[in-house]
Amino acid sequence: METNGHTFLRKALKIVEEEKAQTPLVRFKHPKELEALLDLDVSEGATDAELELCVRQVLQHSVNTSRPTFRNQLYGGTDPYGLSGAWIAEAFNTSQYTFEVAPAFTLIEMKMLHHILDLFGIPDGDGIFSPGGSMSLLYAVVAARFKAFPNVKSQGMRSLPELVLFTSEDSHYSIKKAAHWLGFGTESVKVINTNNEGQMSPSELEDAIERELELGRRPLMVNATAGTTVLGAIDELEAIAKVCQKFNVWMHVDACWGGSLMLSPHQKLKLKGIERADSISWNPHKMMGAPLQCSVFMVRERGLLHECNCAAAQYLFQQDKFYDVRYDTGDKSVQCGRKIDAFKLWMMWKARGDAGLSKLTDHTMNIARFCRNTVAQTAGFRLVTAEMQCPNVCFWYIPTFMREREEDDGWWDLMHKITPKIKELLTLSSQLMVAYTPLRNYKNFFRLAFTFHPVIDEDHVLNMLRAIQECGEKVTLEIL
Amino acid sequence: METNGHTFLRKALKIVEEEKAQTPLVRFKHPKELEALLDLDVSEGATDAELELCVRQVLQHSVNTSRPTFRNQLYGGTDPYGLSGAWIAEAFNTSQYTFEVAPAFTLIEMKMLHHILDLFGIPDGDGIFSPGGSMSLLYAVVAARFKAFPNVKSQGMRSLPELVLFTSEDSHYSIKKAAHWLGFGTESVKVINTNNEGQMSPSELEDAIERELELGRRPLMVNATAGTTVLGAIDELEAIAKVCQKFNVWMHVDACWGGSLMLSPHQKLKLKGIERADSISWNPHKMMGAPLQCSVFMVRERGLLHECNCAAAQYLFQQDKFYDVRYDTGDKSVQCGRKIDAFKLWMMWKARGDAGLSKLTDHTMNIARFCRNTVAQTAGFRLVTAEMQCPNVCFWYIPTFMREREEDDGWWDLMHKITPKIKELLTLSSQLMVAYTPLRNYKNFFRLAFTFHPVIDEDHVLNMLRAIQECGEKVTLEIL
Repeated sequence: METNGHTFLRKALKIVEEEKAQTPLVRFKHPKELEALLDLDVSEGATDAELELCVRQVLQHSVNTSRPTFRNQLYGGTDPYGLSGAWIAEAFNTSQYTFEVAPAFTLIEMKMLHHILDLFGIPDGDGIFSPGGSMSLLYAVVAARFKAFPNVKSQGMRSLPELVLFTSEDSHYSIKKAAHWLGFGTESVKVINTNNEGQMSPSELEDAIERELELGRRPLMVNATAGTTVLGAIDELEAIAKVCQKFNVWMHVDACWGGSLMLSPHQKLKLKGIERADSISWNPHKMMGAPLQCSVFMVRERGLLHECNCAAAQYLFQQDKFYDVRYDTGDKSVQCGRKIDAFKLWMMWKARGDAGLSKLTDHTMNIARFCRNTVAQTAGFRLVTAEMQCPNVCFWYIPTFMREREEDDGWWDLMHKITPKIKELLTLSSQLMVAYTPLRNYKNFFRLAFTFHPVIDEDHVLNMLRAIQECGEKVTLEIL
Repeated sequence: METNGHTFLRKALKIVEEEKAQTPLVRFKHPKELEALLDLDVSEGATDAELELCVRQVLQHSVNTSRPTFRNQLYGGTDPYGLSGAWIAEAFNTSQYTFEVAPAFTLIEMKMLHHILDLFGIPDGDGIFSPGGSMSLLYAVVAARFKAFPNVKSQGMRSLPELVLFTSEDSHYSIKKAAHWLGFGTESVKVINTNNEGQMSPSELEDAIERELELGRRPLMVNATAGTTVLGAIDELEAIAKVCQKFNVWMHVDACWGGSLMLSPHQKLKLKGIERADSISWNPHKMMGAPLQCSVFMVRERGLLHECNCAAAQYLFQQDKFYDVRYDTGDKSVQCGRKIDAFKLWMMWKARGDAGLSKLTDHTMNIARFCRNTVAQTAGFRLVTAEMQCPNVCFWYIPTFMREREEDDGWWDLMHKITPKIKELLTLSSQLMVAYTPLRNYKNFFRLAFTFHPVIDEDHVLNMLRAIQECGEKVTLEIL
């Protein structure tokens, strides 16, 4: 029986090269239009030539995230070394659970974890790569709960006191999903106010913990954030560590976004205190440009992750193997099969070294700073925050016709509609994809966030801002 | 600032091609030896030439899972169309959460889900791609719990009655990890006996449910298995569906392994009753040969997945977008960023069509049947089960010196040591990587499981069995 398809592999790469070079940022079609245009049915099968045509069509109507103008999310183009690593890992398709099927990849994951734990200041810790920041947060809550109540593993939540999780109002929504999934319920998540910059208030945190204690509940974990999703705020980690220590509460730091600042000796000062955390999550697939997904969960106490999560499956983690089975690290995971995400990160790091990554970090912050300064100095733009910690630049663009009016509620309601309208025009003209969002009392504003890849220069930034200006000036009351 | 690394991408593919062709199944080194051999340190950075050398070393000491002789797990070599899809998806790095960043990929995920739901007999259902079977099982338990107790989302497990999950003794261990993570506790998992073939006993299931009800506990979910990990047994799904219906218990079918049999009109009869399930999980990355990871979670009730898991993050799932936001499907997920795993599956299916995949399924079963028959007829081999449902062939190899002895406890204790020893010899000689395991009262035996890729012929099978024989005859009492 013939295995066809092997000749398609080279064709696939040609397609990728050509379509990545030719596809603009975005050729927006509404869902129904796009459905009508693409031939997605799979029932009948296709020749290689037909398949090539379909695939090209799909890519031509995909978003080209490798363009500098893709600033829609906290990821962008990928590090080419990381992409090389991802391709190689896919080709050597295996799972990260046992040394026998992933000998070199197991050592690479261990090496990367050690290097990263050193960098974050918890050299004696442990860790695991997981499929994304939300998963890493699940690991954190599960670890915190198990540490406090080891019986939860066998007996569940019913026998425990009422547990409470603390997070800031600007933190990522995954804490709510975690609270639901893990059996706490979303009401167990206590939301602490932030200051204008987006940082959790340590004194309000302390008050909230005391209040929960008085109510007879058990504060389990504080979820601090180093790099909030929208503003890029970094919580005051030293102050939060003190509060956590005082009340013996697990301190987790969600550094999925801001963790990449640790790569620069200069920038890492902003995260001072992170080395006191009980656990940390960091997504190299965000700012650093590893291909999706690459998330690291770190935990201070070595051994805890295994003890917490192991199920000792006989068919996989046999103890009578002929090699040292301590190298079968997969029982630390909630997954069984697990992608070898560490390899792509290893390739990026190996190619660039600590110094190369530090330079990319500083460059990214410099570009964000340039963007922020330009925004501050350009008529019509208005910044949302007074400071910048991560490379997030948040602002409104106020079209000329809005500028001299009184900024009452009606004015802000209009601005709330103007921002998405500008985004629509930017998208339809394929000039820029940029995030917008409301936050607390703030009406819809833009978030331009910068990543290591593609490497962005000042001209790119000026073009982005010019595009926003141009589309902003096209907005009229009539089209809103 | 220069982005280097782009020239490395082509080099990476040359490395993959060459190393995949040249690397034997396995060049086993013990962990410490391998550590000494590989240059994994990342601190200093490396030139492209140095990096190439390191990467080649890593691959040369990796397991070449694309060899027919890689039969160690329930995955093997990948479908080349699937690998093409994985490479393309990595290059167009994006996340599956919103239509705006993944327009064509969103439609592809929807298309694949519809096609798969049709195939499994729940055309009005819903689904999601997740990073692996253990994750899909988490989705199932969370959905079952939310359906029965919607308040669990806000209030958690404390307010609920004591919930019980049922599974067979041969089922996958992930149910235990799920019970821990989701706050049930592993004691809430009630294990039902299987028959010799590995199928859960429906009458014992019924008894167990009644017993739990008498104890005042609430039976929540039955986790049936279509294709157990070791024996490849398919539970009697019709009978289990009746029990579930009688007691109003959620029926989940873990078809991660056996679900691929649905691709063949002939084979799918074995899974009759699966269309009555409330939820199903299936891993195309196992038998079908999609690159890791590709797991589908299906649920009968449309809308439930979103209602259960949504958190309505303002910054991502804005309701004031300029397109139909029902195409932003990401809030069904517990993940935030999510890989576009549907695309590689779509490419495989598009290339081969329903008919092509059906042929691969039948071929895989035929080869397994040939292997089983050969094992049955060859001196020294002994089958574990009387029947075969999935392409798992389980057996002992009894070396000549063991054959005429009385099969008392001591004899079986020896067999328990002989099987791993044969595996060791097979691995060290790079002839075959094959799974072994004990199961219930059975002492260590081999599991040869077959997958769609690489396509295996009868000569491959004869060579595998010959290698087992050869290594088996090298085992002596002295070396055990």
